[in-house]
Amino acid sequence: MTMTQPTRHEPIYQRLASHYRDVIHAGSLAPGDRMPSLRTLMRQHAVSLSTVLQFSRQLESEGWLEARPRSGYFVRHPRRSALARVAEPRLDVAPDPAQYVGIHARVSEFVARRRLQPSKIDFSAARCAPELYPGEALKNAAIRALRRQPDLLVSPSQARGSRHLRSVLAKRAINIGLALSSEDIQITNGCIEALNIALRAVAQPGDTIAVESPTFYGLLQILESLNMRALEIPTSPETGMSTGALELALQTYPDIKAVVVVPHLQNPLGSMMPAAHKQQLLRLCQHHDIALIEDDSYSELANRSDAQAASIRAIKSWDTGGQVIYCASLHKTLAPGLRLGWMAAGRWQARVEMLKYAQTRSNEELPQLAAAEFMASSQYDRHLRTLRGKLDVQRAKTAEAIATYFPAGTRMNLPDGGLTLWVELPGQLSSGAVFDAALDAQILVAPGWLFSNSRRFDHFVRLNCGWPYDAVLDRGLRGLGEIVGRLAHRLE
Amino acid sequence: MTMTQPTRHEPIYQRLASHYRDVIHAGSLAPGDRMPSLRTLMRQHAVSLSTVLQFSRQLESEGWLEARPRSGYFVRHPRRSALARVAEPRLDVAPDPAQYVGIHARVSEFVARRRLQPSKIDFSAARCAPELYPGEALKNAAIRALRRQPDLLVSPSQARGSRHLRSVLAKRAINIGLALSSEDIQITNGCIEALNIALRAVAQPGDTIAVESPTFYGLLQILESLNMRALEIPTSPETGMSTGALELALQTYPDIKAVVVVPHLQNPLGSMMPAAHKQQLLRLCQHHDIALIEDDSYSELANRSDAQAASIRAIKSWDTGGQVIYCASLHKTLAPGLRLGWMAAGRWQARVEMLKYAQTRSNEELPQLAAAEFMASSQYDRHLRTLRGKLDVQRAKTAEAIATYFPAGTRMNLPDGGLTLWVELPGQLSSGAVFDAALDAQILVAPGWLFSNSRRFDHFVRLNCGWPYDAVLDRGLRGLGEIVGRLAHRLE
Ligand SMILES: Cc1ncc(COP(=O)(O)O)c(C=O)c1O
Ligand SMILES: Cc1ncc(COP(=O)(O)O)c(C=O)c1O
Repeated sequence: MTMTQPTRHEPIYQRLASHYRDVIHAGSLAPGDRMPSLRTLMRQHAVSLSTVLQFSRQLESEGWLEARPRSGYFVRHPRRSALARVAEPRLDVAPDPAQYVGIHARVSEFVARRRLQPSKIDFSAARCAPELYPGEALKNAAIRALRRQPDLLVSPSQARGSRHLRSVLAKRAINIGLALSSEDIQITNGCIEALNIALRAVAQPGDTIAVESPTFYGLLQILESLNMRALEIPTSPETGMSTGALELALQTYPDIKAVVVVPHLQNPLGSMMPAAHKQQLLRLCQHHDIALIEDDSYSELANRSDAQAASIRAIKSWDTGGQVIYCASLHKTLAPGLRLGWMAAGRWQARVEMLKYAQTRSNEELPQLAAAEFMASSQYDRHLRTLRGKLDVQRAKTAEAIATYFPAGTRMNLPDGGLTLWVELPGQLSSGAVFDAALDAQILVAPGWLFSNSRRFDHFVRLNCGWPYDAVLDRGLRGLGEIVGRLAHRLE
Repeated sequence: MTMTQPTRHEPIYQRLASHYRDVIHAGSLAPGDRMPSLRTLMRQHAVSLSTVLQFSRQLESEGWLEARPRSGYFVRHPRRSALARVAEPRLDVAPDPAQYVGIHARVSEFVARRRLQPSKIDFSAARCAPELYPGEALKNAAIRALRRQPDLLVSPSQARGSRHLRSVLAKRAINIGLALSSEDIQITNGCIEALNIALRAVAQPGDTIAVESPTFYGLLQILESLNMRALEIPTSPETGMSTGALELALQTYPDIKAVVVVPHLQNPLGSMMPAAHKQQLLRLCQHHDIALIEDDSYSELANRSDAQAASIRAIKSWDTGGQVIYCASLHKTLAPGLRLGWMAAGRWQARVEMLKYAQTRSNEELPQLAAAEFMASSQYDRHLRTLRGKLDVQRAKTAEAIATYFPAGTRMNLPDGGLTLWVELPGQLSSGAVFDAALDAQILVAPGWLFSNSRRFDHFVRLNCGWPYDAVLDRGLRGLGEIVGRLAHRLE
């Protein structure tokens, strides 16, 4: 079974809705195009009128189609197309490997203000609504595990993690081109612990680590807490870390000990690395004999709508010498209430196991068993497809609201998956000012300065679209748009 | 409610058994003494004959009493009294703050050989049998929590830990003299993570940390993985770390950044620090302005049989300036299947919270809720009393078997609580040789060289007594005694 095959359990109208989403995504049906007639659709897909109406109405409610009286359905002109894409980074700026201080303070300030000030609407997290996850099925799996092994909570767990979960993960990893045995896998407390351990396995305090720019602020915080230096490598909002810029950096700074990349749906950019870039990156790391830490927290949230994404491959799938430490998470894809991540560390596996043991010992068995039971069934793939479909709608609606409410000069990409949008404010407007003003209006955003040690992204905000789009979120985005408009106006 | 008050739920015969265990422990009834007659006991405690018979038979089965025909019950002469106590450390040896390498390799070798070779009997862990813990009650509490909050597994958890658990811990901490609010507490993945975070909060790679000698090998492994140096301070098997030796060390090595002590039931010695030593230690740390990391994983397993132990106080209870980072664990006392620990870090609290967030994010909510529900009821104190009682019996029987089966020259203390015994082999016999020979006989022991970077404890072994004593364990100890005897004989 591959991840792209629909299962029998998915209703036909959903499969059709998802098919036409892909078709529109891919551009085969462009904005303004007329949809085939109901009669044609019935004939073409051999389905009933009610099925055709069902999926058409669903796509209409999601904003993909609009019904015009007496003319049928048309592909909507999304307002988001009015927004220019985010600019590509300049590659001619030399990176600066300062041991940046203050990201702790910034993150802590962010966390503290988030906690202190009551907020009505939170666009700041990279997080989905609990109802988007299989809470009921996981709950039942947990209860079954407890009934089956009544002494589960009082018996010690296995150091590497539950064998059952590890073998389920190994089996699923085939889908991204990885041939792993359960012995190659170490379960961790989220991808965060995997990243900590990976970095400690390959580098020492004082060492320099090449990272994407902008990057996930959690990584910058980890690096600073480990006294490592972050060297930010220019990163394309479309194709991820620039391998050319990395090559230059590796020649200039021989003390780089590792590269960390998020090849799929990079946080915050949403970029997807093409296969050729992945292979180039790996060759570079092999040539310079440095570790490549692949953070693959999000690949399951990437749409399988084009040929590239349909066959998402981990960088580690090309790795023959054990150069890549693959890190992943179940926290965003399966269950935000479980702190489950995992890693396959190639030549550093023994050191990784030791560090995990010394840092937190084993993970608890119960959540692993619940996750394994769910993931071993066909339910997980079904859940992922549904989740991606819902995120598509939420992302599209959020993007459209931004295009509608934000002032001219706002720029944004619409990544083909994931739960956040990276928005460039007009006129180099400071996201700090926007953060402050929004907080006064009880709206939380993630300001761009969280995602870099430089000031290059001060005029960006990252906006969450993990919650079902509703009137409250719409009001929030309108309010945010007005704040940006007001502040941008003052700049002029 | 204090921890020393029996609750109404405990059967009377158990309360009487526990009372007479204490009396014998304290020496008020010495080996060979005649117990009061059944009639006297009935009158004295206002109980029925069957109750008196019940507790007398229990104490007999536990080895505290023996019935002599027509004369009644007598306090048994424990064979263990034949064993000399372990020697006090020499205080005139200057400590050597080398950055010892190889403890990783040693621990890893130990773990690997433990895993590879099938063992029938494992005396090597510091671990109790699952049936000694409230598995059923915790399982039910977990199921109730899942039913009450069906989306528990798909909702994010709180950064510091479950508020409910933190307030239960704060309330219980009153018993050891700590006035904490739930805001002062950070939940961690076991005491192991608390120790990692505490060390990272107060010291840098290259810094020196004063530790007990011998000490818990997990701590040595943590220090080495953090590139910190362990300075081993002579430690009394009775009263814990020598404050005199520490004072000398602090004067000699000004780069000591912290002291780590296990004041109650130190691992592996079993020592209990007297209140005066605790205060002295704290004053020293205050005077030199270094952090005092108090690892209190075991105080709940210490018997409340003498005045000192009955009022166990955390070192932190005397701490007014926030000098002490208190770390504790629920893993050994409540549930070996839960990875729950906690810390109260005084002046380092903000840094500790940041490091916890950067290292593993929050703990999962479910196990915390199950633990909190159980601990908030009277069940936890009842469980602890029962656990201590059972450990008493297991420790006494293990000690007696050692006294019986091991050759002359073997030395050992009998700590007043806990789950391990620290045994000195005769004639400086190498525990490495014993470890190898025992492994061939499928018996696992923890060799002394795991507990120090020096070779000072090579002729010790630590033996677990966490399992109900039975014929298999008895055979194992007899086999072990024969191995020690054979090897010791060869030495002569
Ligand atoms: C790129 C990336 N890696 C790792 C993480 C953290 O993963 P986990 O929650 O599994 O620790 C995040 C979460 O925001 C992320 O965006
Ligand atoms: C002194 C001491 N501290 C900490 C630990 C580990 O505690 P936890 O299992 O809660 O991580 C142990 C376990 O053996 C120990 O003996």
